[in-house]
Amino acid sequence: MDLAPSPLAVPFPAIPPIEGVMLRIARAHYKTWDRCDLTYAELAEGTAVAGVFTRNVCCSSEVELGREQARLGRARALVVNAGNSNAFTGYRGREAVEQIMAQVAAHLGCEPSDVFVSSTGVIGVPLPKDKAYAGVAAVLEAEPCSWEDAARTIGTTDTFPKGAVARAVIGERTVTIAGFIKGSGMIAPDMATMLGYIFTDAAVAPELLQRCLSAANLATFSCITVDSDTSTSDTVLAFATGAAGNAPLADFDDPGADAFAAALLDVCRQLAHLVVRDGEGAQKFIEIAVTGAASDDSARRIGLAVANSPLVKTAIAGEDANWGRVVMAVGKAGEPADRDTLGIGFGGVWAARDGLPLADYDEAPVAAHLKSREIRIDIDLGLGDGAATVWTCDLTHGYIAINADYRS
Amino acid sequence: MDLAPSPLAVPFPAIPPIEGVMLRIARAHYKTWDRCDLTYAELAEGTAVAGVFTRNVCCSSEVELGREQARLGRARALVVNAGNSNAFTGYRGREAVEQIMAQVAAHLGCEPSDVFVSSTGVIGVPLPKDKAYAGVAAVLEAEPCSWEDAARTIGTTDTFPKGAVARAVIGERTVTIAGFIKGSGMIAPDMATMLGYIFTDAAVAPELLQRCLSAANLATFSCITVDSDTSTSDTVLAFATGAAGNAPLADFDDPGADAFAAALLDVCRQLAHLVVRDGEGAQKFIEIAVTGAASDDSARRIGLAVANSPLVKTAIAGEDANWGRVVMAVGKAGEPADRDTLGIGFGGVWAARDGLPLADYDEAPVAAHLKSREIRIDIDLGLGDGAATVWTCDLTHGYIAINADYRS
Repeated sequence: MDLAPSPLAVPFPAIPPIEGVMLRIARAHYKTWDRCDLTYAELAEGTAVAGVFTRNVCCSSEVELGREQARLGRARALVVNAGNSNAFTGYRGREAVEQIMAQVAAHLGCEPSDVFVSSTGVIGVPLPKDKAYAGVAAVLEAEPCSWEDAARTIGTTDTFPKGAVARAVIGERTVTIAGFIKGSGMIAPDMATMLGYIFTDAAVAPELLQRCLSAANLATFSCITVDSDTSTSDTVLAFATGAAGNAPLADFDDPGADAFAAALLDVCRQLAHLVVRDGEGAQKFIEIAVTGAASDDSARRIGLAVANSPLVKTAIAGEDANWGRVVMAVGKAGEPADRDTLGIGFGGVWAARDGLPLADYDEAPVAAHLKSREIRIDIDLGLGDGAATVWTCDLTHGYIAINADYRS
Repeated sequence: MDLAPSPLAVPFPAIPPIEGVMLRIARAHYKTWDRCDLTYAELAEGTAVAGVFTRNVCCSSEVELGREQARLGRARALVVNAGNSNAFTGYRGREAVEQIMAQVAAHLGCEPSDVFVSSTGVIGVPLPKDKAYAGVAAVLEAEPCSWEDAARTIGTTDTFPKGAVARAVIGERTVTIAGFIKGSGMIAPDMATMLGYIFTDAAVAPELLQRCLSAANLATFSCITVDSDTSTSDTVLAFATGAAGNAPLADFDDPGADAFAAALLDVCRQLAHLVVRDGEGAQKFIEIAVTGAASDDSARRIGLAVANSPLVKTAIAGEDANWGRVVMAVGKAGEPADRDTLGIGFGGVWAARDGLPLADYDEAPVAAHLKSREIRIDIDLGLGDGAATVWTCDLTHGYIAINADYRS
C-alpha cells in the first residue's frame, strides 16, 4: 500500500555527519518490494550504548537479546531489518538474529554482543536466514548513505522519513546528538517506544547514557500514543562514539552533563512528535497538558487515558469541542480526580472550571482552533502539583482504511 | 442522526407482563426531537432492588444518588431520561434529580429514596428542570406501554430496542426475569455497565438480589466492550416485586436460588450481547475465549486487551486472520503470558500453538469463518486453569462516521 505523506509531515532536518558513525543501506528483499530494507550503522570502537525496549511480554528475539546486550554498555554495529518483525517466531527467529550478529562480528572482528539487531514488519514469519545473509553481505560492501536514506529504509507504513538533531556544549567541545525513528501504527503508551536510533559523538559512560535515555524516554516516547497498541518490537537505542573528545561524562554532576541530557531529551521529544505526526490516518497533532494532578505519574496516566479515548480522538477529527468526552476519559483513568474541581480547555480557552461549564464560555475561538492542524487540550485536576504533557493524533477513516485493508 | 439498524440486530423478544411492574413513556422534549424520551416504571410496594454502577469517578448525580439508594434495598419507581446525561453539571444537575424524586414520591406517597433516576445523552448540560417536571407530570398520566416501547424510549444512538427474558422455577412457582438495556458507544470493560433495567416477579431479599446481580455483572456486562470508553452514567438495576408468591429467597442455599441466579445471569448475558450487537459501526460480533491463563481474572483482562485493540478490531473488520495482532494484544495486557506456550485460533482452527505458527495451518476455513457475522477467537495461554469469555464488535468506518460527526 502506497500512502500519501501525512498532512502533518515535516521536512527531514539537515543533520551533519557524526564522527564514529557510518551508515549504509541495502536490499534484503524481505518483501516483494523494490526498495532498500536493511540498514546498517558501523560505530567506532569504544562506543557506549543504552537502550529502552517494549514491555510487551510477547517481545521478539531482537528485543530479548538487545536488552541483554545493552546492559553490557558497548556497541560496534546496528542492523535494522524492515518488512519482517521476526516476532513470535520461536527458536527459528532467534537463530536468524544470532546469524546476523555473528556475520557482522566476523567482519568487524568484534564480539557478537556488540552487534545490535532490530526488525519491524509482519509478526509470526521467521526472518529468512538466506535473505538476511545476502542482505548483510551486500550492506557491508555498500557505499555510505545519508541520514535521510537510513531513516527512510527503517520505515514500513511510515509516510515520511523522520530525523532530529540537537547540540550541547560540554566544556570546550560542542557535541552533536542526532537520531532517526520509524513508527506510525501499533504505537502505545506506558510500555515503551518505537524503533528509534540516536547517535552522538559525545564521550559518555554507558551507565550515565542509560540514565539520560531512560529519563528522556519517560517524558517523550512514553508520553505518545497513536492507537494504544504496544508493538512486540519497540526499541530505542542511543550510541555515543566519544569522537568529540570531550572530557568523558560519567555522572549527572559532571560539567556539561546537564546540557547533554537536555539535548538528548530534545532529540527524543522531536522524534516522538514525528511518530505522532505520522500516526496512521492522522489529520491533527494533539497536545494534552495535564496539571493539578495528584502526581506527575498520575497526570501522565490521565493524559494517556484521554489520548487513547476513541471518543475524544474522533471528536477532534470532527473538529468538535466535545469536552464532555474529555471529562469521561479523565474519569475512567482510574486515577485521583474530583469532578467538582475539574477544568477543561481547548486552545487556551477554558470550557469548564470547577466541575461546571463556564457560563460565559465562548465557543467561537475554540471552534476556530479546532480547525487547525495542531490542537491543544488543557486539563486541570485542581488537586495537586502533578503535571505531564502527552501527545497523540486524531482517529479518522484513514486509520480504519490502513488497518482493515493492510496485512501488517 | 438517523442510523440504519445494525446488521447484527435481533428482533425484540416476546416478554409477558410482570406482576408488580407497570411501564409508561412520555415526551419531555429534552432535545429538539419528536419522540418519547422519558420512561417510567412503577413498582409494587415491597419491591427489592439491587444495582451496579459505573466506576468512572466523574459520574453523574444520578449514579451517586442511585448507589446510595440501592444500598437501602427498596424501590417504588424508576425514571429514565434520554437525550441528556446530566453528568458534569454540579449542584444544578443534582437539584434536577432530586426534583424528579420528590415529584414521583409525592404522587406515590413513598420516600424520595424509593425513586430511582437515570439519564443518558449529552454531558455537561444540566437537565432542564421545567422539561423534567412537565415530562414526569405527563408520564404519570400516560397509558401503560409495552416492553418494546420502554426499551426504545431509553435509547439514544441505539439502532434497535434491546430486551431479554428468562424464567426460573422456585419451589412451586415459575418466576419471570425480564430486562431492557440501551448502549452502543462509550461502552467499556472493567468498570461497569450500561443503562440496563431488569424486572422480576420473584420474591428475593435485596442482599441476595445484589449478590446475584454483582456475580452476573462480572461475567456479562464487565466482559463486553465496544470502544474502551467508560460512560459517566452506566447503571444496571434489578427490581424484584415479589408478586410471584414464591417462598422468598434470602440465601444462595435456599431452594430455587440457583435457578434464579442462573436465569438472572442468562438475562444479563443476553442484554450484554445486545449492546455489543449495536456497537457503533459494528459489522461483526466477536467472541473471545481465553483459556490456560494464570487466573479467571487474568483471563478476562487479557480478553479485554484483545477486545479493545484497535488493530485486532480493524483486522476483523477487514476479514483478516491476523493472529500476529492478537499476540501483540495478549503481550501488552500486563498479565502473565509466555510467548512460547501461546496458542491462537479463529473459528475453532488453531493458527499457532506453543509460540509458533502451525506448519499445516490451513487458512481457507479461517478465511471463510471471518466472512461471517459471528467471529470466534480462541486464546490459550498454556499456563494455568484461568478462563474467561469476552465479547466485542469490529472497528469500522461506521464508528468514525458516528463519532466524528455526531455531537453526543
